[in-house]
Amino acid sequence: MLFPALENVVRLLSSLPGIGQRSALRIAFHLIRSENEKANDISEAITRLKGEVRFCSRCGSLADQDLCSICRDSRRDRSVLCVVEEPGDVYAIEKTGEFGGSYHVLMGAISPLDGIGPGDLRIKELLGRVQDEPDLKELLLATNPTLEGDATAEYIASLLKDAKLHITRISHGIPTGASIEYAEKTTLARSIKLRQDFKAQA
Amino acid sequence: MLFPALENVVRLLSSLPGIGQRSALRIAFHLIRSENEKANDISEAITRLKGEVRFCSRCGSLADQDLCSICRDSRRDRSVLCVVEEPGDVYAIEKTGEFGGSYHVLMGAISPLDGIGPGDLRIKELLGRVQDEPDLKELLLATNPTLEGDATAEYIASLLKDAKLHITRISHGIPTGASIEYAEKTTLARSIKLRQDFKAQA
Repeated sequence: MLFPALENVVRLLSSLPGIGQRSALRIAFHLIRSENEKANDISEAITRLKGEVRFCSRCGSLADQDLCSICRDSRRDRSVLCVVEEPGDVYAIEKTGEFGGSYHVLMGAISPLDGIGPGDLRIKELLGRVQDEPDLKELLLATNPTLEGDATAEYIASLLKDAKLHITRISHGIPTGASIEYAEKTTLARSIKLRQDFKAQA
Repeated sequence: MLFPALENVVRLLSSLPGIGQRSALRIAFHLIRSENEKANDISEAITRLKGEVRFCSRCGSLADQDLCSICRDSRRDRSVLCVVEEPGDVYAIEKTGEFGGSYHVLMGAISPLDGIGPGDLRIKELLGRVQDEPDLKELLLATNPTLEGDATAEYIASLLKDAKLHITRISHGIPTGASIEYAEKTTLARSIKLRQDFKAQA
């Protein structure tokens, strides 16, 4: 390429997750074609993001200061710790209103195909918290019910098998409102294998 | 999301081609985690790109002023116009040293599946040049030999069937150095159907 400014943008953009050389070039062309304002907006938004948002030093969720609002909240139940893959999962669970404990965000799940191993996740930090937080009694593994999420949950459970902790997993099954006839096969199989007492469902 | 700065970045990034809501969020998390310097570099690179690179107002290739260096070059042959999909194709053809004419960049190819129709390409500009450039004798259609590129070439040829122009297409065939045994089937079929006089190949 004859334009150093273009080469530079492509190199930087393709260092971002999920953007290859080809899509970086497409994005650069798109930006060259766009209004100056749009490119400025993106530049400014990135700078503002770095200034205003960080990760909570304890749980790894999003925060506007060292600790996030949940970790700072003294009314939260410190005996249950919910382990999730991404900060977005924290918001989804908070919206249900079903959980009053604290969180730990792993920042992903074990996925050998994507080159993500246990060392790339916040598992060491989780083990540290299990040791340092004396009130902790239950660890709720709320990673996604996918191959990767299941493997991550298994891995964490195996690391903590000797800890004095009740380790639980979110339940799997047919989603509310779904039809049995068209349910995804693996989900249906699991919901039969893991069937619950009728009264427990109420 | 509780963080307007994050919401803002995700909205802007997901407006770029090839970036969905999910990958925009992944990129934002990556940026939050990165050194401040990296985020700054990206912001600055985008601003610099807009300042230093634009598209040639005539051919649509990359330029540092209103016309690109090829369109400004009076030694180029104005009787042959080579039509390509992307600015990168211009550089690839220039490197061969086989072409001394001028270019026209379409900025893509017709692709109904991606929602790209003739109106999204620089075809109107091409028709304008065919009318305005009196020396033009040959139009070499060098769109990719893909479904989309072939369709685009067909479409342009059909629009210009009454123009006094020799319309040509880059040749298709077995790439230099490839083996017939392992050649891709469609390519091999085409290279037989479109076989050339032996002397023409020299």
